[in-house]
Order: sequence, then structure tokens, then C-alpha cells
Amino acid sequence: MPTPIDAQVRPPSPRETMQKERERAQGTFDLERLTYAMGGGEADVKLRRKHMFELERDPLFKLNDIHDLTKAEIRERTMAKFVSMAHYLQSESIPQFQQRMNVVSVADPAFWTRFGVHFGLFLGALRSGATANQMSYWMSRGVITLQGMVGCFAMTELAHGSNVAGLETTATFDERSDEFVIHTPSVSATKWWIGGAAHSATHSAVFARLIVKGMDYGTKTFVVPLRNPKTYQLLPGIAIGDIGKKMGRDGIDNGWIQFTNVRIPRAYMLMKHTQVTREGEVREPPLAQLTYGALLQGRTAMVADAAVTAKKALTIALRYAAVRRQFKTGDNPLETQLLDYPIHQRRLLPLLAQAVAMGFTSFRMTALFEEMSEELEALGTDSDAEETKSVLEKLKETHATSAGLKAFCTWNALETIEKCRASLGGHGYSAYSGLPSMYNDQAVQCTWEGDNTILTLQSGRSLVSSYTDAVKGATLPGGLSYLNSLPEVLTTACPSDAATLELDTLQAGWDCVSANVVKQAHDKFEEALKSGGGAKNREEALELCSQERFVAAKVHTAGYLFRMFREALIELAQNEPADNGVVATLEKICTLYGCWAIEENAQHFLKYRFFAPAQMDAITAEVTRLCAELRNCAVLLTDSFDLSDHIINSPLGRHDGDIYNHYFAHVKAANPHEPVAPYFERVIKPLIEREDVGFDDADEIDLDEELKEIQEEREGGDEDDAGDDDKEDEADKTRKVKETLDEPPK
Amino acid sequence: MPTPIDAQVRPPSPRETMQKERERAQGTFDLERLTYAMGGGEADVKLRRKHMFELERDPLFKLNDIHDLTKAEIRERTMAKFVSMAHYLQSESIPQFQQRMNVVSVADPAFWTRFGVHFGLFLGALRSGATANQMSYWMSRGVITLQGMVGCFAMTELAHGSNVAGLETTATFDERSDEFVIHTPSVSATKWWIGGAAHSATHSAVFARLIVKGMDYGTKTFVVPLRNPKTYQLLPGIAIGDIGKKMGRDGIDNGWIQFTNVRIPRAYMLMKHTQVTREGEVREPPLAQLTYGALLQGRTAMVADAAVTAKKALTIALRYAAVRRQFKTGDNPLETQLLDYPIHQRRLLPLLAQAVAMGFTSFRMTALFEEMSEELEALGTDSDAEETKSVLEKLKETHATSAGLKAFCTWNALETIEKCRASLGGHGYSAYSGLPSMYNDQAVQCTWEGDNTILTLQSGRSLVSSYTDAVKGATLPGGLSYLNSLPEVLTTACPSDAATLELDTLQAGWDCVSANVVKQAHDKFEEALKSGGGAKNREEALELCSQERFVAAKVHTAGYLFRMFREALIELAQNEPADNGVVATLEKICTLYGCWAIEENAQHFLKYRFFAPAQMDAITAEVTRLCAELRNCAVLLTDSFDLSDHIINSPLGRHDGDIYNHYFAHVKAANPHEPVAPYFERVIKPLIEREDVGFDDADEIDLDEELKEIQEEREGGDEDDAGDDDKEDEADKTRKVKETLDEPPK
Repeated sequence: MPTPIDAQVRPPSPRETMQKERERAQGTFDLERLTYAMGGGEADVKLRRKHMFELERDPLFKLNDIHDLTKAEIRERTMAKFVSMAHYLQSESIPQFQQRMNVVSVADPAFWTRFGVHFGLFLGALRSGATANQMSYWMSRGVITLQGMVGCFAMTELAHGSNVAGLETTATFDERSDEFVIHTPSVSATKWWIGGAAHSATHSAVFARLIVKGMDYGTKTFVVPLRNPKTYQLLPGIAIGDIGKKMGRDGIDNGWIQFTNVRIPRAYMLMKHTQVTREGEVREPPLAQLTYGALLQGRTAMVADAAVTAKKALTIALRYAAVRRQFKTGDNPLETQLLDYPIHQRRLLPLLAQAVAMGFTSFRMTALFEEMSEELEALGTDSDAEETKSVLEKLKETHATSAGLKAFCTWNALETIEKCRASLGGHGYSAYSGLPSMYNDQAVQCTWEGDNTILTLQSGRSLVSSYTDAVKGATLPGGLSYLNSLPEVLTTACPSDAATLELDTLQAGWDCVSANVVKQAHDKFEEALKSGGGAKNREEALELCSQERFVAAKVHTAGYLFRMFREALIELAQNEPADNGVVATLEKICTLYGCWAIEENAQHFLKYRFFAPAQMDAITAEVTRLCAELRNCAVLLTDSFDLSDHIINSPLGRHDGDIYNHYFAHVKAANPHEPVAPYFERVIKPLIEREDVGFDDADEIDLDEELKEIQEEREGGDEDDAGDDDKEDEADKTRKVKETLDEPPK
Repeated sequence: MPTPIDAQVRPPSPRETMQKERERAQGTFDLERLTYAMGGGEADVKLRRKHMFELERDPLFKLNDIHDLTKAEIRERTMAKFVSMAHYLQSESIPQFQQRMNVVSVADPAFWTRFGVHFGLFLGALRSGATANQMSYWMSRGVITLQGMVGCFAMTELAHGSNVAGLETTATFDERSDEFVIHTPSVSATKWWIGGAAHSATHSAVFARLIVKGMDYGTKTFVVPLRNPKTYQLLPGIAIGDIGKKMGRDGIDNGWIQFTNVRIPRAYMLMKHTQVTREGEVREPPLAQLTYGALLQGRTAMVADAAVTAKKALTIALRYAAVRRQFKTGDNPLETQLLDYPIHQRRLLPLLAQAVAMGFTSFRMTALFEEMSEELEALGTDSDAEETKSVLEKLKETHATSAGLKAFCTWNALETIEKCRASLGGHGYSAYSGLPSMYNDQAVQCTWEGDNTILTLQSGRSLVSSYTDAVKGATLPGGLSYLNSLPEVLTTACPSDAATLELDTLQAGWDCVSANVVKQAHDKFEEALKSGGGAKNREEALELCSQERFVAAKVHTAGYLFRMFREALIELAQNEPADNGVVATLEKICTLYGCWAIEENAQHFLKYRFFAPAQMDAITAEVTRLCAELRNCAVLLTDSFDLSDHIINSPLGRHDGDIYNHYFAHVKAANPHEPVAPYFERVIKPLIEREDVGFDDADEIDLDEELKEIQEEREGGDEDDAGDDDKEDEADKTRKVKETLDEPPK
């Protein structure tokens, strides 16, 4: 049906629509207070704002042109930022600087990594492995301030990643000269993926097998100079190359290194733990090194990063969904905002709830980590056995849980980015939406610092062992406390008249189901160990229950996120005024997370009969209902994530909603007008002006008539023998050649 | 414990390991026969080999350097390939050429798209929309052979993607001049994402609202010249820009187009359907256009592409897993091959089964599509009502199913690539592994040609309506036939003594659960329509059950893939000798797919009680067992996918297994040695040689002593009034200035 053009309704501008979204949410919660709650408290939020502001003003941290820089350009720009960050590193306390780096990691993940290679990995290796004298030696060489040296961390090799014990590079002690000879024995032993190696590092912390007097003592750490710090020329015996193009984080100059009989003084081996004397005596440390602490800190940072990264992606997707209109429904004269579609709410809002859960969990992990560090330090010779055991038990639990959290939170963030990207439709495929590079940058978080699958299995392995402990009557701490009420917890079920959707009920459900999946892994393990169970030893039995361990870690971690969120909420409720909507809103988000994660893991809730099928339907209905409710304040929730437009770095995720004008302007600025394609003359013109080079003129040969004539001639008889003579001649020649060839060599 | 270095065992080379893998699988199946079965028959396989061979020899189709080309370089190379493909297009039959394009789509997705914009979209628009005279006009202008013109397809706009009816561009008929005026009224109406627009197209098929005499007739298609084909200068009124950097497929020159009162002759509107006469009379076609056919063909191609793309990714991941060793387990002196880890088998082999299922489904879809096209064509005036109804019923079913298949198969392929990439650990992050660009190229398949979420909901909508038909007693065809046995099918359950894992049982399970999830969506829809159900009309009711529709489409599609695989297997078993292992191997793969997909959808199988919890455990055990069994022939299965090393284009997925040497050589060749970083002088030197610019010399100012003196002086009394005089002077000045400002304007 044709319609008169005069009667057509003009939609409000995206900017107006965005304004209406904020008006709509007014009164739901106090934005500033929720921001503090989401951001770990007022002081932290204000500090982060200060950091964001300083980044935005810093000309080196220009972000909006990064998608069109070449790899060479992005490498240089990333390196240029070192000066800026080294300044703060010199002038700030370490915890303050860490907070700054947390902001930088979301704004510029490649720079964060490249700087972190020196600051976290190289310096970290010295801190944990150098003796006091060694440390002051390297400090006098400028290791803290990057004045005189830049470090890298040469652990992984071409054929060896996760298995550090299997590295091939050797460090052979030469007693005569009191030196180590660092050597790469094969291509597969080439140091690989070494951030900083290709361009920026003067020194490396090299993991190599310590060989003394023909004995292999396993991998230790050696400081090996790579380049002359004055000229950056490679030192003798060092071959370095660029690893080249990666999926993301191209600002990092990852390289490969081959050592060919490179000599370093004995004093360059880090000797806080294993020591080699002048005479070649190897002294192993009395106790295996306790590195849990460093691992936990790294993982906490990655969980925090995952939470903020997910919030960044969701800010873009939700603001876009608020102003993008698509299809008319019913008798509305305007097209519908994406955010009004129930399926779109379902795509994004549970992910928002998950991101918030990850955020609260990261804060609680940090607190837990600090508390535990204090307790560990307080442990002394006068601690009683009970006390020591309790702290170590807690450490073990935190270690296992943090492995699972690192894995699932980095996966969650990756999945969130991808779902946000896809929710933008075609525009999510534009580099300028910011989401493709976020995906490509995030992907590696799931691999380094412990491959997620391996970490998940470690977490599962620890859960199996905790289950054994619980059965034996041990009391388990914190996130494992649900195992203390075995066997009852295994068979609880949600009563049919229960308020299915209260947080207490959800918690009971998570406890029951977590206990059951852990039991399943434990039982499978025990079964494999029995005679005929297929496993020759514990290691094999663990392999045979790896799928079950994986599931156990997955469910345990989802339940743990819920538990942490809920505990944070309870704590918050004690301090936050009840009338500002902060607790009420977070309670909804927490319920949404709990219910949605149950839906995602529904098979276990049904299998272990915590919920009956009809109750699962109620869970699904609740997820849908909460999504619809939170839709009303979705934009305001993105505001509470408190990320500046500079950090968001996407015209489609702008605070003011003016997406199309800015996106168009951005695309135009990034792609200056060319009158014709630069390759027009070379490629296009020859294509469209080409003439068919056919074989039509081959008809001129008139071959078939000719062939007929030749044949007739041939069949016409042997009028003369000239032909035959010729043939004989030919046959003669052939024979002669053959005879020559057949002659025996003289 | 230190170990003597002499006693260390050297592992076999990757090449030797790969050879052993093939020996290990010997006798499992006849490789060539399985290749034919996987590839749609001997003839198709041989044709594909011919195409792969021709591609490999074609210098323009060099693939191994693509990761380091700039966007400008990749654009030019992509365009250069047009000549090569245009040659085949001229000399081959359409079906033959389509087969060639199917190979090209896996080797070079960006070229495939860029060429397809002209060949599939522009030419397709003419085919479906031009009258006979219009068609021959454009043919005489070179549209088939690209001699004289290159077309693009200007549908989507900045603010309008999926909703074609909402496009803003106008085509206003000017009766005086017998022309249309094509106009872009606003920034948001800018044609956006137009492949070919930025550089290569001379003409575009523009979707614009037809406006005649003040009435809007909705969107129609117009051919609008963009550039002078001789010079490629833009024509008056045309503004075109480059869309710039994308997530992937940078070889396509996507652009934006703004039309500013551009005039085209009336005859350039495609008039096979809607027509506009010289007098401005608009004649709508008697029947809505039947475009199902074209849609189905496009979707079939995308399902086939998804299957082959997934196989390509799996070839890389499985071959890598075969030769990569990591960690020692038990008393094995060698590190374990990744492929030997149960969790690694679990990560990859179910995806292999899924890829095979998608492959067989694509062949059957093609056959179904051809059969249906014939039936549709045979429908004439003499067909009886029953016959017509049956064909249309089948068409409807195929349409709905193909929407779901397009969505889930492209998603499956994307997920498969990502999981394969991650399974390579760190090396999956290297561009040279080939998987990052595969991911980035594949992502858009989930958005264009129908956004996957929208297609899924369409499929779900159709399932709801089929359920209503089934309840009313209609007999449903093909993939929906399970709805014909309502209500029994809803309540079947796997008997406790049944052979849980036979294909028949699995099929019964899929039928039961598919019927139940469709019923769930249907019931939710009906409930929403009831008074108090929340929906004012059918459209709103559909929105309220969108989550349930989504689930219905998801489960139905997984079940459909299983059904198609199984049917193909039954057919194959009739022709294939029983002793060559082909059918037996495929049966295992089919069982693995069925069981694993059940595990993935376990909540529904438990909720609708087809399986009891213990039976679900049996399914899980069977998945693990089949993975372990298929592990033995995993490498040979990748061989049966029959993709050349050229197409695989990854040193880590090489047929011969010699991964490290080739990967290293590749990285070195792609990243030539630089003695020092190009930005050493600019950036690195100033960093490490910088001196602290501190404020220590500020002490020289000796300020505090001075301040004390000044203060004492000030407090010392008013020996003279000079100061006060000064103050008065100042006050005076201020007053004067103020008076001047307060003066009324003259």
C-alpha cells in the first residue's frame, strides 16, 4: 500500500533517544553511589577517574586512529609510551602504579603487555630469583627506571609452551672460565613469543636447563645480555627475529631468539634458590619455592581486567542498542529500539550481570589475597600446627579457585566481546566499532599465564582432592565450604513451595549442584583407579576423568562468582542507605546472574534434581522478566561502569548517543578521499577494457581438409621408395645412438 | 633429581610422528572411498581436485604471504584475481563455475565475496528484476563478462540493515523529464557496507523508495551509474568513500555512497515486477514475488562453505595435535602427543563429527533444493489443489529449516575455528597459523545474508506455526515429520533396557525433544495471546516467546543435522562395499555427533525425560569412548577432507607434519632481519639514555627563608603610605573600568 510522503513520522535523533533513556531510568538508583559500589569504593573510583583523565590528555595515548596504523607504526607508538609510564613508575607507590596499569590495560592492552614484560616479568624474575647482591647489581644498571636497560622474559620455546620442565635450551657450566654457555640446540628449542625481544630488550631472563658436569638439573633462570644498550646491535652469538603478525596486540614486539654458545658470567645465573659454586657444586634449595603468591596476584589482575573489558564491550553494545532502531512492530509509527526486543535484552543483560559478578569477585579476590599474604607472613616458628594447616588449606583452596576464575573469567570476557560485536549487526564488523580489535586482543588472555584448559583441569584436580578430604572429615574453607555438609548437600532439592527465586534458594542450588559435579569427577577418578578401571596410576586416572574435572571446575566457578557477588551485596547492604536504589538494583542483577547461570547449567540442576522441570521454567521466566526490568535502566548501568569516551574508543558507544554522525566522521577521517583506486591503471582498466583473445582465427588453418588430403596421400600407395629410404635412414640413426649409449664406459 | 644428559631420549621428529599416525590408521578405512563419500561423490571430488590444482598454479592466488600485506596491497591483489575468474566464468557452465567458486570461497573468502558482489548480487538483481529488454541492454554493456562495467549492490544504509522496508534513500519520478531522481536525504541514509563501491564498481543496483506523485510505494531497485567506465571518475552527484578497516575480508573494497539528486532514465528502474509508465502510473505486480528459490540457493552455499571451513580449521588443529608433544605422563620417556589427551580429543573430535554432519547436510540440501525447483516448475494450471498444497508445504518447511541451518552452521563454523585456534595454544595466536584470519573472515557470515539471530527467530516462528498445523491434523513433510506423531512423540522415553546408543534410539530422542521444545514455544505463544497474557496482537505474542522460539530452532536444527547425516549414511550403505570401512567409520562419526549434540542439549533431554540421569551418563561415556576410538584415525580423517596444503595455507597444518621447520622458515621469510628497530633513534634511545629532569635545583631558590623575611617586612608596619597609594590607584582603575562597562549603549 503506497503512503503519502507528507504523513511520514520523523524519528527522534539518536541523541534525543539517548537522553530519553537516561530520563526513563531516573530515580532507579543514585548513579554516583552505584558507581562507587561497582568500582570498589569512592576512593578507587576517583583515582581511576584521575588516571583516565591523565591518559586522555596524554598525546601519546591517542586511541582513535589505532585501527589504521600499520604494524610498524603501532610498534613505534607503543614503545613511545614507555617514557610516559616510566615517569609514573618512578614517582608513584607500587600499589598506586598497579591501579594506573589496570586502567591502561583496558585502554591499550598491547602497551600494557609490552611494558608489563619488563616491569612484571623481567623485574619479577629478578625479585623472586636474585640474591641481594645480584639485585643491587641490576638496580645499579638501571633496571627499575629503564635507564640503561630493558628486560624481556625468555621462557617459552617453539616446541614448548606450558611445559616449562621440557624446555630444551641449555646453560652449561664451564668451570675453566667460571661461565655458563647458553645454547639453543635445535630449531624447536628457539625461544619463541618473547615479548620485547624483537626491538626493545637489551637483556633477557632466560629459562634454560642447568648442566653441570654432565648432569641436567632442570630449568633455572639466567640473565643474558642481548644487545649493546648504546647501539642496540645484537651481541655475538645472539640471533633474534621478529615473530611478525599476530591475531592482536601487534604493539608488542614479540620475537624469537637463538643462542649459539653465548657465554655469561656465573654471577648472571639467579641464585636465590639453586646455586652453583665456583667449583661447580650445585646446591638445591632446602624447600621448593613458594610461588603461589605471585600467581594469585597475576590471576587477580586478569579477573579484574576481564570484568572491566566485558563492561567496556557491553557499554558499546547497550548504548548502540538503545539508539538503534530496526523494524516497526505493532502500530508504533517509529521503528523499535533494539533494546526493546526481548531477545536483544536476553543477548546482553545476562552478560552485564555476569560482568558485574566478575567485578565484585575481583575485588573480593584482592582482599582475600591480601589477607592471606598477611597470614602467610605471620606464620612463623611459633605458629602451632593447627594454625599452619589452616592457612595452607586456605591457600590451596584459593589457588585452585583462582585457576578456575582466571580461566572462566577470561573466557567469559572473550565471549561477551563476541556477543556484543555480533549484536551490532554489520557495524560490529567495522574496525571502528572497537569490538573486533577487543576480541583479537582479548583472545590471548585465554592462553598465556596458564592455558585456560590446563588451568581448568588443575582446578578440577584440586576439587577432586578436596572432595576426598571432605569425605575424610576435613573442614574446608571459603568457597569450598559447601563440601562440609556432605552427604546432605548432595540430595537437597528445592521444595516445591519454595520461593524459587530468592537468593538463598539459588545459593542452596549452587551448593547442591557444585557438590554433585565434584562428586561425579571424584567417583569417576576412583573408578578409574580400581582394578579394571583402565588406569595404571593416579596420573592416568586423572586423565580418564578430565571431562568430569572440566565440568566440575566450570560449575564450581560459576557458583563461586554467584557466591562472591552475593557476599559483596550483603556487605554493601550494611553500609548503603536503603533508599538510594543501589542495593535493590544490585540485588536484581545478582538474581539475574544466579538464575541465568543456572539456565546455562540447567542440565546439572535437572540431573541432580535440585529443580524439577517446572521450576526450571520458572527460572527461565525470571531471567526474561529481570531482563525486561533491567532494560529500563540499562543505559544508566553502562554509565555506572564509569568508562570515559576516550577509553571506550568507539563512535558507536558514545555517552551522548550521537552515533551515526560520529561514526561517519570517523570513517571519513580515517579514509581520505581518493579520486580513483590507486591500482586502477594496473588492474581495473586491463580488466574492463580487455578484448577476448579467442581462438577464432584458428579456423584459417583449415586443418581437417588438409588432414584428409594427407591421409589420402598416405593411403595412395608407394609410388616411389624415397620415403622408405628415409625411414631406413631414421632407423639407422636410432640404432647408432642406442649402440653408443649401450657401450660400456671406458 | 638431576639426570645424566647422555641418558636422555630424543623424541622422533614431527615428520616421523605424522608418518606413524598414518600407519596406525592403516586398514581402518579406504581413504579414497571415504574421500568420495565425504566430498559428494567421485566426480565432485575429482573436479574439486582439478580446481585446487589450477588455483595452486595460478600466480595470482599466492596465499602464503597474505598475513603481511597492507590493506592497500590486499585490495589490489584481490582485484587482480578478477581476470582469472572472469576467464572461467566465460568458458564454463554456471553449475561448474559454482563448484569452482565453492573452492575459492575456502581459499580466499574476500575475493569470493568481492567477485560475488558482481556475479551473485548485481547480476542476481538484474536476473530477478529486469525485463527481457532491460536484461539484453545490460548484457550488451558487458555485465556478464565484466567488459565495460562492474556492478555493486547498494542495499544497506548506515541506519538500516536487516529492515529493507525501512530504507530512506528516495527515487522520485520526474514526469517532465521521464527520469528518476535518486537522493540520499540524510547521513543515516548513506548507503553503507557496499562491497565494490570504494574502488571497483561502475554501476550499482540501488534499493530506494519509489516516490511517484507524492506517494511512497516502498523500496524498489534501480540501476545507477557511479563512475565513468573509461576513467573511473565519479559521476556528478555521486559521493563515495571507503568504509575502511574491517574485522576481516579486507580484500573487499566496501564503501559508502551518497546520492545528491542524481538523475537516471526511467528505463533504469528494474521493471519485471513493479512498473512505472511514462505517465507516472504505478503498476504493482499481481502476486508477491516468489524469491524463496534464490534464498535457498544462497543458504545452501553458506552451509556447504561452513562445513568445508570447519574441516579446514580441524585439519590444522588435528595435524598439529598429532605432532605436538607436551608434558610427560606416566613412565613414557617421551612427551605425550596432544592427541593422546582425552580432553584434547574431546575438544576436537566432536567438532569434526559436527563438520561432517554439516557436509552431508549441505549435499542433501542441494539435492532437496533441486528436486523442489523441479516440482515448483512442474506446478501448472493443471496441477490439482492437493498437489500444489503439498509442494508449497514442502517449500515452507525447507525455507524455515534452511534459515536455521544457515544460522547454526555459520555459528558452528565460527566456534570451530575459535576452538581449533585455542587448541594450538600460543601458536594459534600467530597470524601464520592461519586461524586468526579464518576467524575474522568467518565472523561476517553470521551477519550478512540474514542476521543469524533474526533467521533463527524466523525459523522458530515457522516451527510454531507448523506445530499449530500438526495439531489441526496436517501432515508435515521431511524434517518436520516428527510432528506428525503428536501427542505420542512428546512423551516417549528411552526404555531403561534399550540400546541407548543406537542410531534409532538417538533419532527417537531427537524427535521427542524437538517436538517438546517446539511445543514449549507454541504454548508460550498461545499463552501470550490469551487475555492477560501480555500481548495485544500476534506480533507481540511472538516477541514474548522469542527465547523459546530461539531454543526451538536450535534444537530442531541440531536434530535436523543428525537426521540428514543418518539418512545419507543409510543411502551410502546401499552402495558402498561393507568391507572397506567407510560406512563403519561414518557410523561412528554419526553416533558421536548424535551423542555429543545430545550432551550439548542435555537439559532438554532430561527435562522432557527422554533420558534418565544415568542414561545421560552413558551418553557422556560414549562420547568419551568414541573420541578415543576415532583418535586412532584422526589424521587420516583430515586427509579424507582432501584439502591441499595450498588451501590449508598453514605451516602448522601441513600434510607431512614438518611443522616447526616450515613455521620457522615462514616467520623468517615474512619478517626480514632488521639490525635495529627502525624507531631506535626516535624512541628507544631517548628512553634508555634519558637523564632525570628533577627539581632538585629548586632548592637553590631558598624560598622559605625569603618568605619569612617578606612576612616580617610586611608585619613590620607601614613606614610609608606608598603601598596604600598604590592600592587606591588600583581600586580607582577598577571602578573606572566598571563604570565604562555599565554605561548604557549609545
